Amino acid sequence: MGIIVQKYGGTSVGSIEKIRAVAERVIGYHQKGNKMVVVLSAMAGQTDELIKLARGMTDDPDPRELDVLMSTGEQVSVALFAMALKSMGYDACSLLAFQAPIRTNDIYGKARIQGIETARIRDELERGKIIAVAGFQGLDEHGDITTLGRGGSDTTAVALASILNAEVCEIFTDVDGVFTTDPSICPKARKMEFISYEEMLEMASLGAKVLDIRSVEFAKKFGVPIHVRSTFSEERGTMVVTETKDMEKVQVSSVAYNKNEARVTIKKVPDRPGTASKIFEPVFESGIVVDMIVQNTSEDGFTDLTFTVPKSDFYKTMKLVSDVAERINAHKVMGDEDIAKVSVIGVGMRSHAGVAKKMFDALAKENINIMMISTSEIKVSCIIEEKYTELAVRVLHNVFGLDDEKEEDL
Amino acid sequence: MGIIVQKYGGTSVGSIEKIRAVAERVIGYHQKGNKMVVVLSAMAGQTDELIKLARGMTDDPDPRELDVLMSTGEQVSVALFAMALKSMGYDACSLLAFQAPIRTNDIYGKARIQGIETARIRDELERGKIIAVAGFQGLDEHGDITTLGRGGSDTTAVALASILNAEVCEIFTDVDGVFTTDPSICPKARKMEFISYEEMLEMASLGAKVLDIRSVEFAKKFGVPIHVRSTFSEERGTMVVTETKDMEKVQVSSVAYNKNEARVTIKKVPDRPGTASKIFEPVFESGIVVDMIVQNTSEDGFTDLTFTVPKSDFYKTMKLVSDVAERINAHKVMGDEDIAKVSVIGVGMRSHAGVAKKMFDALAKENINIMMISTSEIKVSCIIEEKYTELAVRVLHNVFGLDDEKEEDL
Repeated sequence: MGIIVQKYGGTSVGSIEKIRAVAERVIGYHQKGNKMVVVLSAMAGQTDELIKLARGMTDDPDPRELDVLMSTGEQVSVALFAMALKSMGYDACSLLAFQAPIRTNDIYGKARIQGIETARIRDELERGKIIAVAGFQGLDEHGDITTLGRGGSDTTAVALASILNAEVCEIFTDVDGVFTTDPSICPKARKMEFISYEEMLEMASLGAKVLDIRSVEFAKKFGVPIHVRSTFSEERGTMVVTETKDMEKVQVSSVAYNKNEARVTIKKVPDRPGTASKIFEPVFESGIVVDMIVQNTSEDGFTDLTFTVPKSDFYKTMKLVSDVAERINAHKVMGDEDIAKVSVIGVGMRSHAGVAKKMFDALAKENINIMMISTSEIKVSCIIEEKYTELAVRVLHNVFGLDDEKEEDL
Repeated sequence: MGIIVQKYGGTSVGSIEKIRAVAERVIGYHQKGNKMVVVLSAMAGQTDELIKLARGMTDDPDPRELDVLMSTGEQVSVALFAMALKSMGYDACSLLAFQAPIRTNDIYGKARIQGIETARIRDELERGKIIAVAGFQGLDEHGDITTLGRGGSDTTAVALASILNAEVCEIFTDVDGVFTTDPSICPKARKMEFISYEEMLEMASLGAKVLDIRSVEFAKKFGVPIHVRSTFSEERGTMVVTETKDMEKVQVSSVAYNKNEARVTIKKVPDRPGTASKIFEPVFESGIVVDMIVQNTSEDGFTDLTFTVPKSDFYKTMKLVSDVAERINAHKVMGDEDIAKVSVIGVGMRSHAGVAKKMFDALAKENINIMMISTSEIKVSCIIEEKYTELAVRVLHNVFGLDDEKEEDL
């Protein structure tokens, strides 16, 4: 039998009892002859506790030391998990990032995995042990601890699955799989059996929180199937796999939304070469991630420039941009936090024309005004007023034929 | 200027505010040009929290995994401490056991330091950084985390001071120094200015909790002076140093006591070669530390055997010994938990006869019965009824001229 990599998130290991339940589940796989490598997150709540400690010390904790602090969360989980397995009579062994080691660059707080040495893991697997790997953490070339950022344990798991050539990477979470949209605002959302890496990437980057985007990139690159499923049930979840012919038959496979963006508009920017660069330079330098950018056609030598940033960076961005606006003699800067982005996604879009039009029509019919539009090969996104988010999601879910009709019969 | 190693215990770093205060204190030293290496324990309470987690999982946690868990406590402290220093504008760097590395054997839970590689520490010191080293933890030859046992941070500090050839190793704690006896039961106890390594070793092994015994052994071996002093005052504390002529002028320098022992007596043991070995074999094999052993002269081919063990091992010992007693046809096994050991210590004993007699007389005068006696070159210990402990300590403190007479004037 081959290697199976599983990842359990914070809620799945949120208490002693839950860790014990995970151990029992993993033992079931082990008894069938699978070689088990289990990646764990910090127990739910612990990461927040640690952040609270750091913020209590200083508003701006040193990134290197913050990673030393944060990485203790996963260390606690894997130690307790290995203890649970041993107390149940199964040989197990926890491994921290420095022990594998899992090598990353030295961008503390959002390090990227550069390689994993597998000798120790393979050695312990050969001895019949169940391996518990601390997710989220890495080791840089100076021998210092790094962390991969929120959701980093997914990346640890998929990277391990890729490098160990695992049969599958199972991501256990507190939802049943990947849904056509958020079931909490659209009761007719359906769990998908399959989704392509590309669609999953779009969903992740559009704000769906199921999988960390870097883990999907890794899986796509190495062709590792990811199985997203629930820790609390035996049901199959959603397989994230290479695109198939069947997938292309569907125009739109899911609807995503994101309320965490804010919009910044600079009115009457003098339309000269280099202006956009001047505006965005301080924003990019501050590490702020700009999502959509729209520039209107110039009129009388002036243009309007609009872009979106994460809500958490809104005030910082407004300040930076206002300073520049003054220097370049722009008319004024306006900001709006009450916006949302709704998106339709599907690899089938490539072969079906008219998805964008269908989307605009559906929104217009509900009197939902579209403020900005952005498209890619497999998605169309619109910025709308935040208050219409739920309505827009339900309408689009219905219009693109995603509603679970069984649900309606009940 | 040279290197100073300081160690701050759990109470000294028990909160964000206290860690900040320690940082300020260390900066003071740094500004005077000292190269600072600071060893920290886990924040007060954290070690107990972690033990609680492990015990919640299983009664008998795997030792390797327990060390992985426990070592997170010190990791949290050093990260927060380095953050504090950086936020105050001083360059700092936390180092965990695996980063130095601090090499130990693989006896999890009570590993012994075998060596410390100092290249990284010296390198960071050269760059002007204040170094925060996680106490209590080590790395074994398999690359796994170990811990040195309770009090292990003292050992980390002294070992570092020895290997770095530090000017002094300052142990900051919540008391003002080493006292002639426990001030909480003897108000006339005096803080000692100096104490020899040998006396400190006896005090540590007799139950005084100021310094971990292994740290004193290390300091003695390498001739590193230890300065035991308070985190919460600027006063000088007690220097633990090589014996001086002055020290020998005093018969007894301190009085110690220990209420954590229990007594086991086996009556009418058949007096044959190998019997003692049969009795102690299962006890030693269980890792129980036997302190005093007394065997009476044989009478009619039978003898009585009495020994003491830590109270926490009393019931286990009684069970083990009762089994053996039956096999070797001993008469019966008796146990007593209500005992205490009082001891007088002093390198001067070597050149002053009659210390034991003076001790026995003083106890007899108060009608305190002596149950067992044990002596070494520089100490005399008596087992007495527990209820007389405080009285015995005060009487001995007075009889050997240790009382603080100033105190009496008040």
